[in-house]
Amino acid sequence: MIITGEALIGGVAVKGTGSPVRAYNPSLQQPMEPEFHTVDFDQIDQACRLADAAFDTFRALSDEKRAVFLETIGEQIMALGDVLVERVMAETGLPRARIEGERGRTVGQLKLFANLLREGSWNDVRIDKALPDRAPPRPDLRMRMIGLGPVAVFAASNFPLAFSVAGGDTASALAAGCPVVLKAHSAHPGTSELVGRAMVKAVELCGLPAGVFALLTGSGNGIGQELVRHPAIKAVGFTGSRSGGTALMAVAAARPVPIPVYAEMSSINPVFLMPRALAARAEDIAGAFAGSLVLGVGQMCTNPGLVIGVAGPELDRFANAAAQALAGGAACAMLSPGIAGSFQRGVAQLAEHADVKTLALAPQAEGKGAPALFVTSGAAFLSQHALSEEVFGPASLVVACKDMAELRQIAESLEGQLTATLQLDDGDLDEAHKLLPVLERKAGRILANGFPTGVEVCSAMVHGGPFPSTSDGRSTSVGTGAIVRFLRPVSYQNLSQALLPEVLRDNGPAVWRRREGELTRN
Amino acid sequence: MIITGEALIGGVAVKGTGSPVRAYNPSLQQPMEPEFHTVDFDQIDQACRLADAAFDTFRALSDEKRAVFLETIGEQIMALGDVLVERVMAETGLPRARIEGERGRTVGQLKLFANLLREGSWNDVRIDKALPDRAPPRPDLRMRMIGLGPVAVFAASNFPLAFSVAGGDTASALAAGCPVVLKAHSAHPGTSELVGRAMVKAVELCGLPAGVFALLTGSGNGIGQELVRHPAIKAVGFTGSRSGGTALMAVAAARPVPIPVYAEMSSINPVFLMPRALAARAEDIAGAFAGSLVLGVGQMCTNPGLVIGVAGPELDRFANAAAQALAGGAACAMLSPGIAGSFQRGVAQLAEHADVKTLALAPQAEGKGAPALFVTSGAAFLSQHALSEEVFGPASLVVACKDMAELRQIAESLEGQLTATLQLDDGDLDEAHKLLPVLERKAGRILANGFPTGVEVCSAMVHGGPFPSTSDGRSTSVGTGAIVRFLRPVSYQNLSQALLPEVLRDNGPAVWRRREGELTRN
Repeated sequence: MIITGEALIGGVAVKGTGSPVRAYNPSLQQPMEPEFHTVDFDQIDQACRLADAAFDTFRALSDEKRAVFLETIGEQIMALGDVLVERVMAETGLPRARIEGERGRTVGQLKLFANLLREGSWNDVRIDKALPDRAPPRPDLRMRMIGLGPVAVFAASNFPLAFSVAGGDTASALAAGCPVVLKAHSAHPGTSELVGRAMVKAVELCGLPAGVFALLTGSGNGIGQELVRHPAIKAVGFTGSRSGGTALMAVAAARPVPIPVYAEMSSINPVFLMPRALAARAEDIAGAFAGSLVLGVGQMCTNPGLVIGVAGPELDRFANAAAQALAGGAACAMLSPGIAGSFQRGVAQLAEHADVKTLALAPQAEGKGAPALFVTSGAAFLSQHALSEEVFGPASLVVACKDMAELRQIAESLEGQLTATLQLDDGDLDEAHKLLPVLERKAGRILANGFPTGVEVCSAMVHGGPFPSTSDGRSTSVGTGAIVRFLRPVSYQNLSQALLPEVLRDNGPAVWRRREGELTRN
Repeated sequence: MIITGEALIGGVAVKGTGSPVRAYNPSLQQPMEPEFHTVDFDQIDQACRLADAAFDTFRALSDEKRAVFLETIGEQIMALGDVLVERVMAETGLPRARIEGERGRTVGQLKLFANLLREGSWNDVRIDKALPDRAPPRPDLRMRMIGLGPVAVFAASNFPLAFSVAGGDTASALAAGCPVVLKAHSAHPGTSELVGRAMVKAVELCGLPAGVFALLTGSGNGIGQELVRHPAIKAVGFTGSRSGGTALMAVAAARPVPIPVYAEMSSINPVFLMPRALAARAEDIAGAFAGSLVLGVGQMCTNPGLVIGVAGPELDRFANAAAQALAGGAACAMLSPGIAGSFQRGVAQLAEHADVKTLALAPQAEGKGAPALFVTSGAAFLSQHALSEEVFGPASLVVACKDMAELRQIAESLEGQLTATLQLDDGDLDEAHKLLPVLERKAGRILANGFPTGVEVCSAMVHGGPFPSTSDGRSTSVGTGAIVRFLRPVSYQNLSQALLPEVLRDNGPAVWRRREGELTRN
């Protein structure tokens, strides 16, 4: 399949009319062919209108048909073969194994949502039958979930497949019956076009309205904001920076009809080192920590950017071992020159900070990121907000607290996080029990004796957390729970069997449902 | 129990330090004793801090203990006896039967949430056990829901018990484990104090931290906005006007940490008259419509403020019969002079509108509302947004369309609604099927051959709908589904049995849970 540099609107490839954009190969440090163009407002409008027009048809599909559509997308992505893998590698600087793994994750995600649709409980069917003899009589009431409407999805830079064109936001929105208008990330436009064409093919093969999916190309905040402002758009999925996410939140809140924004933005993912665990295995923890920190050149939402322990010889053991493991780390190509530049500025600020000591700082290079580790005191961390800001990349800050009370105080001071990790042994249980309620309030996922990179796609995953880790801590963007972001309940009172949606009929499909509030299969 | 005119903060009655406020008896048209006072910002701060401090303890209670707490509130409300009923009647002008019914609904609502807690599936437990032999190994992941944190609840004017101090928002927030800081409605402060004291008594009887509930007195937008701005507040429940709700949404979105607002605001609850039904029983429909319109002096969120049919002799039969039923209606005391004034202004605007004809207009009187019915054309309705604005009270507008296509166009043009109603017979099924997808996108509840007043409290109820009927169409404020507004998911990775919350342990309580995504009791 050839990459033409076009947007995909209404199932047709069209050139944007705006400014040109090119992909950039961060390993070779050179721009790539072909030239893409930013779409104009008319093209955005057309994509959104087509999505709106497709909504009723698409959401009326049976769960089985929507499941087949999701699986067909996966098949079409696999059918792109090595052309896709090589383009992703070229556009991101990420190695083949990572990309092949991420492709597997992306296809697996689509299958997971297909299975969720077939299982059917996502409909949240509730049936309270009429009680004609009650005083006053109770009407027949039945409820189900329907999609919100067309969803604008913004692809992420750091997961060119799993959080991009056919990634988790797209898969869960489509599963919910919502057409998707996708804003491709300008750092991997070729990857986006390839996957976008696979999706258009799947739309055709399944005989769906072309408006079910559109791919918008280009760069700049203008098109994203115009997309979020469009009246046909009913929700937003976004993975990116805090500034980008909060800008979209502001646009969405200022609309005549405000809409929900699910933005996954920033997290420093604190790791708490409990005293007994630290005493027993400071070096082991340090080794695993270093491995997690440099994974994907640190370009993970769940990168462990903060480590908190009580000052003393045991924490020194950890710090020394981690510094040793990281100091020899090579500078690796980051996803884009912009990301590398931000990382190096963030590292330089920490290195020059009066209250911060550098533990490890491998030599940086243009467009690359090399591991960096710093240490500060609990008092300094508590008094200076800048020390808790995310440095996206393989850098982390150790906070040496004067005692466990200060460690808990630091936990309490943190902003919302995607994850919080405890390194603990049996003897640390009492301290962990004190910390746990704080961590529950601060994070969407709490880990014991692991590291937060590696986000399993499953039913029990929460990849989300209180603001500013996401815009909406009531949600997850990974795992089956992601579908509820794009659903709303509708109740039907005294509708005849003929008028009721099939899933609510007396002889409807055997999905899980609540009768008088009680879950049952029948 | 004596009404002292005080706020309730930390379980203690305290006088507000701000401007005085009195209740007003709309039947007698005179102010009532005692004097209340608006709380100051320090008092708001104190209530919010205490709620914050109580949160971890309160949410850690077992489902059973929280269920008992909700039931105890109900018992304490009943124990207020006739003192409460008479005060509500005096403050609202509503008759005894309505108030006793509403008290029953309020206590029933508390019991419903108690039962929901005992049933346990609200926890949304998900367990995906470790797969150590998979490559890469899968960790043990378990998920549950926890409360968002302290909730600010704004009491409604039109349901002094069921949507006020111990109403649906409070019951669902408490069920979710969230302390409540309640802003009493200044139209029924005595009722609020009585119910507030019952709640404080229940907090004491159950041995809970006093911060679990606070009652704030006073009037003016200042205290409401200060409450929503307070960093300890994590969500807002509101029932009231569109201007009030959108103002709180703006405050919540502008916070350093934005929070969700669940505001139930305005709805005109369109009723669609299908041709066959109209031909068969125009007069019957008109009679039932008139009954629904004047219920509670039209002061219902689900009041049928808009009736849409195809112009012709059948619609005239409906209009004439409805006008006849309404014309003799007496002017009844409305909830407050402010509400009566707004109603009369709205009615006068319609009566004077060039494109509107008055069908029935009973004589109005100061502080009262008498039924009013108007008619306009489909073309006029489509071209003038003012005709779709809510007139809160017993007034409705008939829209006479030129054909069914225009009727569908009007459905498509409507803003979000709490309800949409179809009057239909078997011969109308085809037309109803065309209309249904539009109504699903516009409303939270769709009724056939009934009227929207009367909101059953049950599992399958949706009392919510797209903006501006509510701020967040993904939710309901009535029925068990209301609890999810105040919950967020937390995932636990590889936590030991000792550290896991009880509901997630291997030998935890036998609640519904998902294992590998499949629902099971075990």
